[in-house]
Amino acid sequence: MSQGFRHILETFENQYPDRDYTIEIICPEFTSVCPKTRQPDFGTITILYSPDKLCVELKSLKFYLQAYRDVGIFYEHVTNRILDDLVAVLQPRWMKVIADFRPRGGITTRVTAQYRAEHP
Amino acid sequence: MSQGFRHILETFENQYPDRDYTIEIICPEFTSVCPKTRQPDFGTITILYSPDKLCVELKSLKFYLQAYRDVGIFYEHVTNRILDDLVAVLQPRWMKVIADFRPRGGITTRVTAQYRAEHP
Amino acid sequence: MSQGFRHILETFENQYPDRDYTIEIICPEFTSVCPKTRQPDFGTITILYSPDKLCVELKSLKFYLQAYRDVGIFYEHVTNRILDDLVAVLQPRWMKVIADFRPRGGITTRVTAQYRAEHP
Amino acid sequence: MSQGFRHILETFENQYPDRDYTIEIICPEFTSVCPKTRQPDFGTITILYSPDKLCVELKSLKFYLQAYRDVGIFYEHVTNRILDDLVAVLQPRWMKVIADFRPRGGITTRVTAQYRAEHP
Amino acid sequence: MSQGFRHILETFENQYPDRDYTIEIICPEFTSVCPKTRQPDFGTITILYSPDKLCVELKSLKFYLQAYRDVGIFYEHVTNRILDDLVAVLQPRWMKVIADFRPRGGITTRVTAQYRAEHP
Amino acid sequence: MSQGFRHILETFENQYPDRDYTIEIICPEFTSVCPKTRQPDFGTITILYSPDKLCVELKSLKFYLQAYRDVGIFYEHVTNRILDDLVAVLQPRWMKVIADFRPRGGITTRVTAQYRAEHP
Amino acid sequence: MSQGFRHILETFENQYPDRDYTIEIICPEFTSVCPKTRQPDFGTITILYSPDKLCVELKSLKFYLQAYRDVGIFYEHVTNRILDDLVAVLQPRWMKVIADFRPRGGITTRVTAQYRAEHP
Amino acid sequence: MSQGFRHILETFENQYPDRDYTIEIICPEFTSVCPKTRQPDFGTITILYSPDKLCVELKSLKFYLQAYRDVGIFYEHVTNRILDDLVAVLQPRWMKVIADFRPRGGITTRVTAQYRAEHP
Amino acid sequence: MSQGFRHILETFENQYPDRDYTIEIICPEFTSVCPKTRQPDFGTITILYSPDKLCVELKSLKFYLQAYRDVGIFYEHVTNRILDDLVAVLQPRWMKVIADFRPRGGITTRVTAQYRAEHP
Amino acid sequence: MSQGFRHILETFENQYPDRDYTIEIICPEFTSVCPKTRQPDFGTITILYSPDKLCVELKSLKFYLQAYRDVGIFYEHVTNRILDDLVAVLQPRWMKVIADFRPRGGITTRVTAQYRAEHP
Repeated sequence: MSQGFRHILETFENQYPDRDYTIEIICPEFTSVCPKTRQPDFGTITILYSPDKLCVELKSLKFYLQAYRDVGIFYEHVTNRILDDLVAVLQPRWMKVIADFRPRGGITTRVTAQYRAEHP
Repeated sequence: MSQGFRHILETFENQYPDRDYTIEIICPEFTSVCPKTRQPDFGTITILYSPDKLCVELKSLKFYLQAYRDVGIFYEHVTNRILDDLVAVLQPRWMKVIADFRPRGGITTRVTAQYRAEHP
Repeated sequence: MSQGFRHILETFENQYPDRDYTIEIICPEFTSVCPKTRQPDFGTITILYSPDKLCVELKSLKFYLQAYRDVGIFYEHVTNRILDDLVAVLQPRWMKVIADFRPRGGITTRVTAQYRAEHP
Repeated sequence: MSQGFRHILETFENQYPDRDYTIEIICPEFTSVCPKTRQPDFGTITILYSPDKLCVELKSLKFYLQAYRDVGIFYEHVTNRILDDLVAVLQPRWMKVIADFRPRGGITTRVTAQYRAEHP
Repeated sequence: MSQGFRHILETFENQYPDRDYTIEIICPEFTSVCPKTRQPDFGTITILYSPDKLCVELKSLKFYLQAYRDVGIFYEHVTNRILDDLVAVLQPRWMKVIADFRPRGGITTRVTAQYRAEHP
Repeated sequence: MSQGFRHILETFENQYPDRDYTIEIICPEFTSVCPKTRQPDFGTITILYSPDKLCVELKSLKFYLQAYRDVGIFYEHVTNRILDDLVAVLQPRWMKVIADFRPRGGITTRVTAQYRAEHP
Repeated sequence: MSQGFRHILETFENQYPDRDYTIEIICPEFTSVCPKTRQPDFGTITILYSPDKLCVELKSLKFYLQAYRDVGIFYEHVTNRILDDLVAVLQPRWMKVIADFRPRGGITTRVTAQYRAEHP
Repeated sequence: MSQGFRHILETFENQYPDRDYTIEIICPEFTSVCPKTRQPDFGTITILYSPDKLCVELKSLKFYLQAYRDVGIFYEHVTNRILDDLVAVLQPRWMKVIADFRPRGGITTRVTAQYRAEHP
Repeated sequence: MSQGFRHILETFENQYPDRDYTIEIICPEFTSVCPKTRQPDFGTITILYSPDKLCVELKSLKFYLQAYRDVGIFYEHVTNRILDDLVAVLQPRWMKVIADFRPRGGITTRVTAQYRAEHP
Repeated sequence: MSQGFRHILETFENQYPDRDYTIEIICPEFTSVCPKTRQPDFGTITILYSPDKLCVELKSLKFYLQAYRDVGIFYEHVTNRILDDLVAVLQPRWMKVIADFRPRGGITTRVTAQYRAEHP
């Protein structure tokens, strides 16, 4: 299932591959569904990365994140799955995904996951 | 195309080349066009550098940045292209360009790129 | 169509009908779909009312608002429709609905609608 | 049931009955139980009143509010019930009770109720 | 010239014409050109109105405001012209347009104009 | 007992009795003792008045307020007693006393009392 | 002397004379000279008006205010003189000028003057 | 003694006597001496007035306020005395003096006095 | 020209040369003239230094900075020139000059330059 | 002259000499006289220290600082002199004196001086 939405992500060629630079993307409109209660969850997804040969096209990223709208998935898993999909498609030098979820039962949650290429 | 607007940039002689000092320039009125949708984008460009022989003349920098008004270009590329153009014209000791773009489809983006002279 | 979700709303008897009092409910996790682009919209719904014989049960209100998750509807209409449904079900002495939507194409919108019973 | 905890409230004689003055009491540590889900609710109760012959003793008020810890009751009703109990025991010239509840299912609620003596 | 962009504005039927309600729209990405220096100006346009038979469709409003991107026009006139165009197309019960422009030559400007229908 | 500390208050002649002016005094270091638990209470006393023939001397006011340090007295009564003592000694045109007490058992209290001369 | 700089002010025709609207202009870079000590003074000039037949052109207003750079004049008089000049040139329906000067000798000053046309 | 420092105040002719305008002066560096303890007091004096034929010259006002540096005087009296002196010298249409004194013995004081000309 | 205003700076003997201490001076009223457009520029100059044998006398520093009022000079150069002049006159152990200029053409600039004595 | 006011400072024995702890004292009511113009200066003196055998008695510190009321002294020197006097009397492990002076001629100044015992 992990490859489910990966095909939605589009890329464009990084015209500056010789430079080590950083891209930060903040998406405060993420929503998915709790796998236990089927109730909607709401959160903010923040993505930081240094591109190698490819950059993620932002409109396709929006559609990729919208694809989770009806998916039942735990906070912890969705954070890692977004990281896995973006790493697979972009092959970045490094990437970090931070997911901040709104309170449920009085409890707020943040999940952070990171990737670093082996031969940078 | 990368040299496209470079000629707009004017310089003046740095009268204090023996001193390592820092210039920070904030331009909150940057606008270009999305290369996919042809819709206008808006952002803030921040430039930090230490001059060597030349400083950038600010009015020419304003005209240089205004030149992107009708250009279709990705956020990631415009940040690097501004850095490349300024580095080519000024040959600074180091330079950093930060581009903060306003939300599109609920998504906010910041791109940061840096240059450091090899023999400073 | 306006009665579409009205049946989801549950009520409980107002045990204090002799008193004129105020209930304010804030729902920052509202999402629906743009009727033109089919893209998701996000917003905060605020409801103020003075109950007569009935109060809205909050869990059913949550389900009622969640029902809009896949509905294509304009901001202006959804605000009035929520007001109409709640007025029809609760017959409150007065009610106000405020909807604050997140930016789309750089544009932020707030819609405010009010109801007052004729013979209070 | 409405008289359930009323006996916990203690009073002391208002030594200044000839003067119209105001007492404001804020209790940010209120907790009760949702009558539908049996989950705990948390909120802040604010009480304003002008005493006539009696003032409420604050330690007994604390015990009175603590008595709701295991009671399943709607927000709307607990607000009015606190008002009714305090009015019955104190016979104040006027009184206002405001209850602010923390988010449940992403929804925040405030209930406000007031009393004014008929022959002041 | 005043009708120049009016045709870009699209409307949809107000499904709640019997109710007097308010719509507030904030557009922080407005840009036009100074009629004297041909330099770009930047500002925020805020529109408030109560619809009668028609509401403005927001995507068309975005395109309408983008149409000023290359127009040389004074701050004072563009504010009134936006008001005139929206009033002509929507025939609202009342409307207010506020334009806040960024500093030029160290000077910041805000223009506010209002319309009220004669027989509401 | 109400006259207990009144003798501590000293006055000086108001040299400007023909003018209606206002004096505001804030004393954030008030402490007394709870009459039930013998625990110390802490609060801020604010006094506003328009003098007639006399002004209160501030050092004596400080000693007067310090006299409550070991007195067991309810919040409601101490506020009124300070007002009574100051009115008796100063015969002001009007006076207001506001007492803000720090939380006890999680409960915060403010008491407000006012006086206005009958023939001003 | 009062007409001294009036000729610098340029106007353009108000294309919307049938509408009563408001223009607010803030100029935080005003400097003149103290008439007693010949030391420079610094302040912020705020102008509010409703135009009749004419609007002030902002670049000419900037040059007009810059003309005071070497003029020795009291705060009180410069505020009124700016008002007189703008009223003479624009014949507005009403106008207000507020001048906030930076501290001198530890003293900060604000002067506010207003004009209203007699037959509006 | 009340005329003691009045001679220090200098005036200049109000060149705009036909206009009713307002001058606000803030002096945060006032210091005098407590008449009982001979300890220094510190405060901020705020003066608001509408001039008739005369304005107060600010440097002389600074010297006038400095003259209180070694004077033993109650807060209440110094506020009224400053008002009396300025009214006598300027004959303003109206004037207000507000004196905010720093804490003494934990007590903060503000005194406010006003004057209005009888035949304005 | 760099020595142009240096003679205005006066010094006094540092009576504590055995101690390494810091002096910070903030001058928010700096104005000079753009060397290209002859338009006035406005900014804040901040000076930090550790004195050796001499301290700068503040009134002379004020006159020194006022001398730039009619000088056409780039932001980058004036910052370094102030640093050079103060270093030449004071021979401090170290010094830092920060110049923050107000926006021109929508662009804000900060220049920072530093000096450190070679044998401290 | 430096010993002038040192005798005013009184001390008491530090009962916890085995512990390294910090004392911070803020005195916002400092005033002295400019040695050039004889005009009063106003500032805030902040003292931080770690006591060894002695602590400064605060009432005596107040009198010590009040002693500068009529002394003509530069900001830079008074800061060091206070440090010298307190170090001589207290022999602390370390001490820092920060003096923040109010603006004069538009210029604000802060002086910071430090002492550290040689064999701590």
